Amino acid sequence: MSTNQYTLDLDRAHVFHSWSAQGSLAPLVIAGGSGTEVWDDDGTRYLDFSSQLVNVNIGHAHPKVVAAIQEQAAVLPTVAPAHANRVRGEAAARILAKAGPAFGKVFFTNGGADANENAIRMARLTTGRDKILSTYRSYHGNTGAAIVATGDWRRVPNEYARGHAHFFGPFPYRSEFWSETPEQEGERALHHLERVIVSEGAASIAALLLEGIPGTAGVIMPPPGWYAGVRALCDKYGILLIVDEVMSGFGRTGDWFAWQNPEINPERVVPDLVTFAKGVNSGYVPVGGVIISESIAAQFDDQVFPGGLTYSGHPLAAASIVASIDAMEEEGIVEHAAELGREVLGPGLHALAEQHPMIGEVRGIGVFWALDLVTDRETREPVGAATIGALKKELLARGYLPFAADNRLHVVPPCTVTAEECLRALAILDEAFTALDH
Amino acid sequence: MSTNQYTLDLDRAHVFHSWSAQGSLAPLVIAGGSGTEVWDDDGTRYLDFSSQLVNVNIGHAHPKVVAAIQEQAAVLPTVAPAHANRVRGEAAARILAKAGPAFGKVFFTNGGADANENAIRMARLTTGRDKILSTYRSYHGNTGAAIVATGDWRRVPNEYARGHAHFFGPFPYRSEFWSETPEQEGERALHHLERVIVSEGAASIAALLLEGIPGTAGVIMPPPGWYAGVRALCDKYGILLIVDEVMSGFGRTGDWFAWQNPEINPERVVPDLVTFAKGVNSGYVPVGGVIISESIAAQFDDQVFPGGLTYSGHPLAAASIVASIDAMEEEGIVEHAAELGREVLGPGLHALAEQHPMIGEVRGIGVFWALDLVTDRETREPVGAATIGALKKELLARGYLPFAADNRLHVVPPCTVTAEECLRALAILDEAFTALDH
Ligand SMILES: Cc1ncc(COP(=O)(O)O)c(C=O)c1O
Ligand SMILES: Cc1ncc(COP(=O)(O)O)c(C=O)c1O
Repeated sequence: MSTNQYTLDLDRAHVFHSWSAQGSLAPLVIAGGSGTEVWDDDGTRYLDFSSQLVNVNIGHAHPKVVAAIQEQAAVLPTVAPAHANRVRGEAAARILAKAGPAFGKVFFTNGGADANENAIRMARLTTGRDKILSTYRSYHGNTGAAIVATGDWRRVPNEYARGHAHFFGPFPYRSEFWSETPEQEGERALHHLERVIVSEGAASIAALLLEGIPGTAGVIMPPPGWYAGVRALCDKYGILLIVDEVMSGFGRTGDWFAWQNPEINPERVVPDLVTFAKGVNSGYVPVGGVIISESIAAQFDDQVFPGGLTYSGHPLAAASIVASIDAMEEEGIVEHAAELGREVLGPGLHALAEQHPMIGEVRGIGVFWALDLVTDRETREPVGAATIGALKKELLARGYLPFAADNRLHVVPPCTVTAEECLRALAILDEAFTALDH
Repeated sequence: MSTNQYTLDLDRAHVFHSWSAQGSLAPLVIAGGSGTEVWDDDGTRYLDFSSQLVNVNIGHAHPKVVAAIQEQAAVLPTVAPAHANRVRGEAAARILAKAGPAFGKVFFTNGGADANENAIRMARLTTGRDKILSTYRSYHGNTGAAIVATGDWRRVPNEYARGHAHFFGPFPYRSEFWSETPEQEGERALHHLERVIVSEGAASIAALLLEGIPGTAGVIMPPPGWYAGVRALCDKYGILLIVDEVMSGFGRTGDWFAWQNPEINPERVVPDLVTFAKGVNSGYVPVGGVIISESIAAQFDDQVFPGGLTYSGHPLAAASIVASIDAMEEEGIVEHAAELGREVLGPGLHALAEQHPMIGEVRGIGVFWALDLVTDRETREPVGAATIGALKKELLARGYLPFAADNRLHVVPPCTVTAEECLRALAILDEAFTALDH
């Protein structure tokens, strides 16, 4: 009975899907996975260059993480947040060790959205201010405050929370500031941000919420000076800096966090709050959280923190975090992702762009890449949905599971992907673009 | 090393806790559990009459649910929501079979808060209206819209979402309507609700959000006529009815859902949206969701639903739901909870109230009970925090893990608790109240 058709029928009859009209869905069946590979119920295999929703950083069914989940499930799958539990404490200690000495405590949530909700709550309570600034090109989650912090179209039908304002972040390839170099883009974006801060009223702004590297919006690499400039503006106006590392954290960029990457943040400025989910345990068990600076954590020693959730610090999630971070260290997975990006994926994707004029820009680092597809390299006119649809079809037919958004193909395999798998994927990409060229 | 002190030190150094000032916490250590029992790292055992946060309906580490998690973890722990996955479809089918034929689809989330967020989103999009009405005595979760839908004090420091209004629900023991019988309370509460609807402007109200039985607020049993009256008001004014069964669902009341219980809803009126979490899989893996009526689900066949989350329909969670619902059926766990409430817990708690004048009222059904503690039975003056603190201490010292809220002790063991365990717990309660009497 475990055929694709059976699974599809069950799905179409009973399951309501995210971000879509339900009537016209034709989901791909996925039944199992191992490393970079997934397969459906009929046994067809795919190279997963999506990491699902860019979360399976350690690959599918990593044996050490699976074993940790299996062991913890038998001992204590769940516990109330008010109690103390050893593996929860160990997970927090592991995460804090990666974040560095500026940080004091971890608050655990179920995913990325409620991580941002709680970081926003902490910022509002710490500053006594109301507004949250974030960029139009951002995604921060689907709950009340997180969806209104989100800048992209998904915000608009959901604008029920107040106290959010948006601005344009830097984007050299598609500048909103008529700039001609990344340096100019960085300077002008900072100028624009300061104008928005002053115009919104600096004293009304609790926090600036920024993705480590804007991910869903197209792996938009921050230009030189951006991080340091943002930190300086926050300090000047008493605004807290929340960096959302939900997608960019835990190996994706070839570093533990994007803000720690010397290419992205050479000045090594430090945020006040960092949100995480996805890569922290590759999503094997739903979990997210907020890494809290020493000083903000101390603020709540006497003041009650008015936030919480039933599964905060869930032991099954905690066990998977401990095993995942330990395996990443033991196996050098983060360094591997950095090297693959530098040696194989980056050069391979740039070589592809030389062959295929549809690829307007190649952006990225580590295992976090996007191809910005255009109808014309001069005008940079984005390709339409039909082209993206055709590209996905060509890729799937060749056993490549893609991640596409707007006019882009995001090339985001697990951090554990091998060089051989990357070369196979690059060859498939070449074939698919060639098919499209005709 | 796995001693209580080691675990406590780790916790206090690194973990940020919900709903509290961090400086003065003294959490209880919990290391493992089985059935109704939990134990700490030093081997001290407790009877868990809290079910943690009233979520471990099937008891701790139920072998069938543990096995399902272990098996699924090895095959495919996580998958993107856009794909189709067999066990996700089976979980949705199981839930819909319990909800009944009025319901069409399930949208999965990570917990109770985002279940309510998405039910609220569906209601707003379906009606084109903005406001959500809910009661002051309610808890609906900690995210942007869910926390402002919440009526209790936790709402007040978090009021950043707009479009929420609150009213007083029925509460015979502590009436806001000067009523003298439950019947009168039901009538007057419906009158008050209609006055609020008209005063807020019926055409501005998308949904009424009600807990199946208000849980955290004190297991407040709905008076006769309440459900049918609420449904009639919703129909009269074109308002959708969302029933939040996060705490009251999946066995807690001795039924699959509180709104299906003939004592609570003899007219068997049906909600439009039902939210769930906790008992659906006892929280072994974080999960929640929305059960969507046929007609609301159909609304989104052509219209895009603008909500979603990375772990929607998570296979590990889905496997635990399937195993949990199947085990509940095979082992007659829901019927067992109903019978225990009727034969053992209910009579036992009422007998206790006869011995201890501090117990002002015993309320509940199934394995969902609250003792409303008072300094004086005439005035019904609630006992203070010191008394609750002393009671908790007496209970813990006797190996009983309590759930206390405000002036109440909630008696909420797993649905799988045995009659013998209930009798042991009742004896401990008797001793603890006797100690307090002195
Ligand atoms: C940067 C960022 N923040 C937050 C989220 C929301 O995370 P979740 O889907 O777990 O709520 C996402 C999800 O894609 C994300 O990419
Ligand atoms: C009735 C009700 N709704 C919603 C919630 C929120 O659920 P969660 O903590 O999983 O977000 C709770 C939690 O106690 C609840 O009791």
